[in-house]
Amino acid sequence: MSERSLYLDPADVRRVTCIGGGPIGAGWSAYFLARGYQVTSYLHDSAEEASLRALIDNAWISLEELGLAGGASIGNLQCTSDLAEACKAADFVQECAPENIELKRGLYSQLGDLVPPHVVIASSTSGLSMTEIQSNCATPGRTVVGHPFNPPYLLPLVEIVKGQQTDPEAVQWLVDFYKLVGKAPLVLRKEIPGFIATRLQEAIWREALHMVANDEATVEEIDLAITNGPGPRWAIMGPCLTFHNGGGEGGMAYNLDQFGPALKLPWTRLEAPELTQELRDKMVDGCVREAGDRDYTALSRERDRGLVAISKALRACAEADK
Amino acid sequence: MSERSLYLDPADVRRVTCIGGGPIGAGWSAYFLARGYQVTSYLHDSAEEASLRALIDNAWISLEELGLAGGASIGNLQCTSDLAEACKAADFVQECAPENIELKRGLYSQLGDLVPPHVVIASSTSGLSMTEIQSNCATPGRTVVGHPFNPPYLLPLVEIVKGQQTDPEAVQWLVDFYKLVGKAPLVLRKEIPGFIATRLQEAIWREALHMVANDEATVEEIDLAITNGPGPRWAIMGPCLTFHNGGGEGGMAYNLDQFGPALKLPWTRLEAPELTQELRDKMVDGCVREAGDRDYTALSRERDRGLVAISKALRACAEADK
Repeated sequence: MSERSLYLDPADVRRVTCIGGGPIGAGWSAYFLARGYQVTSYLHDSAEEASLRALIDNAWISLEELGLAGGASIGNLQCTSDLAEACKAADFVQECAPENIELKRGLYSQLGDLVPPHVVIASSTSGLSMTEIQSNCATPGRTVVGHPFNPPYLLPLVEIVKGQQTDPEAVQWLVDFYKLVGKAPLVLRKEIPGFIATRLQEAIWREALHMVANDEATVEEIDLAITNGPGPRWAIMGPCLTFHNGGGEGGMAYNLDQFGPALKLPWTRLEAPELTQELRDKMVDGCVREAGDRDYTALSRERDRGLVAISKALRACAEADK
Repeated sequence: MSERSLYLDPADVRRVTCIGGGPIGAGWSAYFLARGYQVTSYLHDSAEEASLRALIDNAWISLEELGLAGGASIGNLQCTSDLAEACKAADFVQECAPENIELKRGLYSQLGDLVPPHVVIASSTSGLSMTEIQSNCATPGRTVVGHPFNPPYLLPLVEIVKGQQTDPEAVQWLVDFYKLVGKAPLVLRKEIPGFIATRLQEAIWREALHMVANDEATVEEIDLAITNGPGPRWAIMGPCLTFHNGGGEGGMAYNLDQFGPALKLPWTRLEAPELTQELRDKMVDGCVREAGDRDYTALSRERDRGLVAISKALRACAEADK
């Protein structure tokens, strides 16, 4: 018997329990319903059911447009305010309780007993540490961070982070399960505050706050600068491949060798790391690996096709809004 | 006679001169050709003409797909290596020379005499100061930064920054002209290093370099985190309106009052400004103003429609690549 048999085969999951009725809990519930699962939504207060259903109805418009799995139906949703009831038959639990470490610790001490022992419990936390969340849980091995991006029914990223007591098999199970349901899981190498995407987003956010504080730009100007500038590129290529492509035929190597000194300039309040030979090589090798057999022309065409498609798609949205 | 009559009416511009044959110079040339202008491309070395034309041919595929202006044709392009020839009949000059302050200063001392005195000269510089660029120019009043985002033929943003000697009328002329040709000009309130969009982009970039340097993430992981996470949102709403929407019914006010303390957390290496009451109010008021009559539900629908459209558009691109 292999160790993997501790956990249900991801393909055999039928019943998903989502804990929490806010935008993230509702978003996950809608997503799992659209993928054909039976979903139980645990609500702290049964009065939240109306707003949960309104959020799911809104998500459903988009999910239908992107295509539902066979058998998918909002009718497969059950709501309960009984935590034991919500947990007892779950094949997978996605926890979306408020971002409060004491509240989560208390919740996981209950979930540790209520959820069948070999069912994985993923936390949607955007910033708390699983090591801390799982500290009072009797069965911490199957608890993992599975942090989505809002709205969870449309953005594919889920950041996966283990705590000190998390079983590596549970991490692998979660990767397999998220991939199976159409998500883009990203396993963190280290338990760093803010994970990867939020750290990058937070860097922009803090710089934006500095600009507003110093009257260098208004909120509207910052938003226009992003949506009309780097924003659409980031929907297609991340910042590294964008700069690799921006370097022309010479790619990232040209960029770093040419613009490395600009890291010393006061462009943003964020101090840059020293551009050592090792860091330079990591960046260049990573971009070359990521680009694969796509040369400068191929990457430029891919970027341009994406930007044209986004431009036409958003233009059509704006027309429809009129 | 009003002061504005110093400059040609933007609607009367017929001949645009682009200086430089790299991706930015070629991108601007392609864009102005697509908008129906006669374009003269000044090349430092006439041997660059083949690569310039290859870049323009590539841009043309996208520009045709988005729709050309009446009379637009690549046949309206002329190339020359004679700077006086390139400048003498120009109604507008977009300078895209290499990012080297000495080179640009020398160039502007020539342009100051060669370009007819009431023709606006815009510099594509992404980081140099117009105050320095124009310091040796005999006619500095009509020189302004007009910084595009790559590729200039697809991304609408142009950041406009004046130098100490720039005439405010020239700034207004440039805003009017860029709007007329379909660009999204953004006039900076202050001459800050890196302008607005590059500062925001640079904050992400530096945080990404720190992550790679510390083995917290690879280049590929960083790019996946952005393209599958916040990237698509930034194509639709900037970071401020995204967080206003993310705050639910309570908007930015809820977000700052709830998550303000997170600014003290080590999420990114960028130190946050102090969240004073004044800064809080500027952020909240700005978002409320930007949202206008769009409430939480309307903003969420707009975001979701955009994300569905982007998702379908990029899915179609990926299918076409197979």
